[in-house]
Amino acid sequence: MELKKIGSVKFVKGGVCAAKGFKANGIQCGLVHEGASLTSKKNDLALIVSDKECTAAAVYTTNKVKGAPILVTKEHLKNGTAKAVIVNSVNANTCNPDGVEKANKMCMLAAAELGLVPEDIIVASTGVIGQVLPIEPIANGMKELAEGLTYDGNSRALEAIMTTDTMPKEAAVEFEMGGKLCTMGGMLKGSGMIHPNMATTLTFITTDADISAELIQRALSDCVKVTLNMASVDGDTSTNDMVCVMANGMAENKPVVREDKDYEAFANALYNIMMNLARMMARDGEGATKLVECVVNGADSEKTAQIVAKSVICSSLFKTAMFGEDANWGRILCAVGYADADFDIGKIDVQIASANGSVHVCHNGAGVEFSEEDAKKILEHDEIQIIISLGDGAGAAAAWGCDLTYDYVKINGDYRS
Amino acid sequence: MELKKIGSVKFVKGGVCAAKGFKANGIQCGLVHEGASLTSKKNDLALIVSDKECTAAAVYTTNKVKGAPILVTKEHLKNGTAKAVIVNSVNANTCNPDGVEKANKMCMLAAAELGLVPEDIIVASTGVIGQVLPIEPIANGMKELAEGLTYDGNSRALEAIMTTDTMPKEAAVEFEMGGKLCTMGGMLKGSGMIHPNMATTLTFITTDADISAELIQRALSDCVKVTLNMASVDGDTSTNDMVCVMANGMAENKPVVREDKDYEAFANALYNIMMNLARMMARDGEGATKLVECVVNGADSEKTAQIVAKSVICSSLFKTAMFGEDANWGRILCAVGYADADFDIGKIDVQIASANGSVHVCHNGAGVEFSEEDAKKILEHDEIQIIISLGDGAGAAAAWGCDLTYDYVKINGDYRS
Repeated sequence: MELKKIGSVKFVKGGVCAAKGFKANGIQCGLVHEGASLTSKKNDLALIVSDKECTAAAVYTTNKVKGAPILVTKEHLKNGTAKAVIVNSVNANTCNPDGVEKANKMCMLAAAELGLVPEDIIVASTGVIGQVLPIEPIANGMKELAEGLTYDGNSRALEAIMTTDTMPKEAAVEFEMGGKLCTMGGMLKGSGMIHPNMATTLTFITTDADISAELIQRALSDCVKVTLNMASVDGDTSTNDMVCVMANGMAENKPVVREDKDYEAFANALYNIMMNLARMMARDGEGATKLVECVVNGADSEKTAQIVAKSVICSSLFKTAMFGEDANWGRILCAVGYADADFDIGKIDVQIASANGSVHVCHNGAGVEFSEEDAKKILEHDEIQIIISLGDGAGAAAAWGCDLTYDYVKINGDYRS
Repeated sequence: MELKKIGSVKFVKGGVCAAKGFKANGIQCGLVHEGASLTSKKNDLALIVSDKECTAAAVYTTNKVKGAPILVTKEHLKNGTAKAVIVNSVNANTCNPDGVEKANKMCMLAAAELGLVPEDIIVASTGVIGQVLPIEPIANGMKELAEGLTYDGNSRALEAIMTTDTMPKEAAVEFEMGGKLCTMGGMLKGSGMIHPNMATTLTFITTDADISAELIQRALSDCVKVTLNMASVDGDTSTNDMVCVMANGMAENKPVVREDKDYEAFANALYNIMMNLARMMARDGEGATKLVECVVNGADSEKTAQIVAKSVICSSLFKTAMFGEDANWGRILCAVGYADADFDIGKIDVQIASANGSVHVCHNGAGVEFSEEDAKKILEHDEIQIIISLGDGAGAAAAWGCDLTYDYVKINGDYRS
């Protein structure tokens, strides 16, 4: 899948280890969940550590049911600083009576091994909800995990947070702030917006930029609205979702403390990372065979454009039509029609496009003649664009989703295996 | 599937022909849609006619994209009276430049044949969106359709409105108003909340009760909120949804003109019809193998209970777990957690039940030990109940849905066939 570039950034390798001073590692410590027939054959515990103290910020799930690690991380990030991330897969440590105790214990174990205080640690978990997290495998693995930290350990760490993901999802960019070269990189796991079976969406982003925690928070809160929050696999919002950004200042740029040009450069780098991770997540949606991007323009506001784009992306009927490579634009118009926003349905234009061409299917809310053969060819591609014009103004937005397939049902219908 | 009875009504046969003075018929007039490989082998045009003028009321889709028949029926019901329904399947007559003209034409053709004025006719269509409706087959079939009207033609009419439905859906009850025996019957089509491929949800209800149009409207608007609006197959709201009720007064009860005991009896009969039709619709959801009922009680209001019940029923992850017969209560709690209402997640109790028994899976928001074997047995049944207690008050609600299966994807992913 090709990365999409906005503004002046340069894509580089290295994920969360791309920026200066970040080590990572992932190991298989042996977590299993009840009902699993086999021990996981992949890494299940990861550590990301910065050489220097970082300013840091995070955004969390809006689900009222929140995983215990979310509560602990929120507490630890109150002072806007952090130095390391400890994260496990397999078990979400959510809806357990001893969840907070176990999440705190994970921080204490990591801190002890790294010579830090627990408050320096960001903790996250992903996996089955409602099964008590066994702490022994984590305690027993911590020494090996810390000893194996390297400046190129991003892939090992990434493997440890993956669940039903079928492809690793990471991106990194170089960008400039005040004449200094900065680097930012991130990794994401998530293949459904949620699947308590085996997952959630977690994103970790590291950078060597020097920027205040307050401005990281502002950039992150803005960026998540137009990237991860505009991507949907199945409409379910996880209990454990978290995106965190750590900045260690080792690029030695002039510290960013207000919304100036440097802040813009930082925010743009963050957008490039998060937008591409969002696209990868949608493309790797459980069972998906296609990435579907819905672009809405001509709306009376950005908000209206977002609501309409997301309504289309989330429609089960539209998603199955994409799987069937069927230019059934009636389903697109129907999803536009029940979007909770104001616009004139009689002014809507719809185009369907891919690298194989484009076709105009609806003009002023009514169908237009088009070649079904051309449409079929366009929809055979694995990256589809739906372009909707509302004819009302300058508001625009994009949303990312995927098709709904037999494999989605298979992955989620199978008995917790 | 067994009918569920609330209050004092008695189930009888006959569907829309159960009440006195209603004739019906359905024929195959030969409507086809573009891309269909074969002419439909089933009835596609139906007529329901009352011997006497009826008071009547309807509720319609909230989708901003509305089928042309909706616009015409709204106009015709402004005076609160009607005498007949003409309805076709195969083509939704929606998003067409000449849609209103064609819907009016259908009313004129039916009126001419029946010796009525077009304003007496309720018109509805269901099928593919955005293809021009050919009026010739309807014009050519009208004579045969009218001549075949009988007081037991409900099954022929019902067949004519079915699309991807796999079972006919009708119910009728006897009830008493002011010492007079009244009858009410209804039929419904709909197998997804919408599938422009081939459908929508249409409900027609007839009764020989004597009641004002204003009170029918009130009872219908109240009833739809707790029946059809609490049922979901795929979350998509159709462009053509319509429920209409016609009352011809032939039971000779004292006319109901205020919210008295007779009105309560009428509203209860309506609830019995619509609740059972909603359950049938959910059970016959596209590709469904199970009816899933979610009952929420202990909420601070009925509204909160409704929001929570519907959030569970609509979760793709929960629905696939039901298909997999997996007591994955984490998915239930997750869907409760992202429901847009206020309650304390720490007070939630969850039980899973069916005719095979019941099991308590979650207490005060945390998991409790239960036998996976028992749970498996409970979930093998084709009617599942999820019972959620919020521990906050007396608000209660029920919602009806189905599992998400391979066949849902197959039915909707296939190329408009």
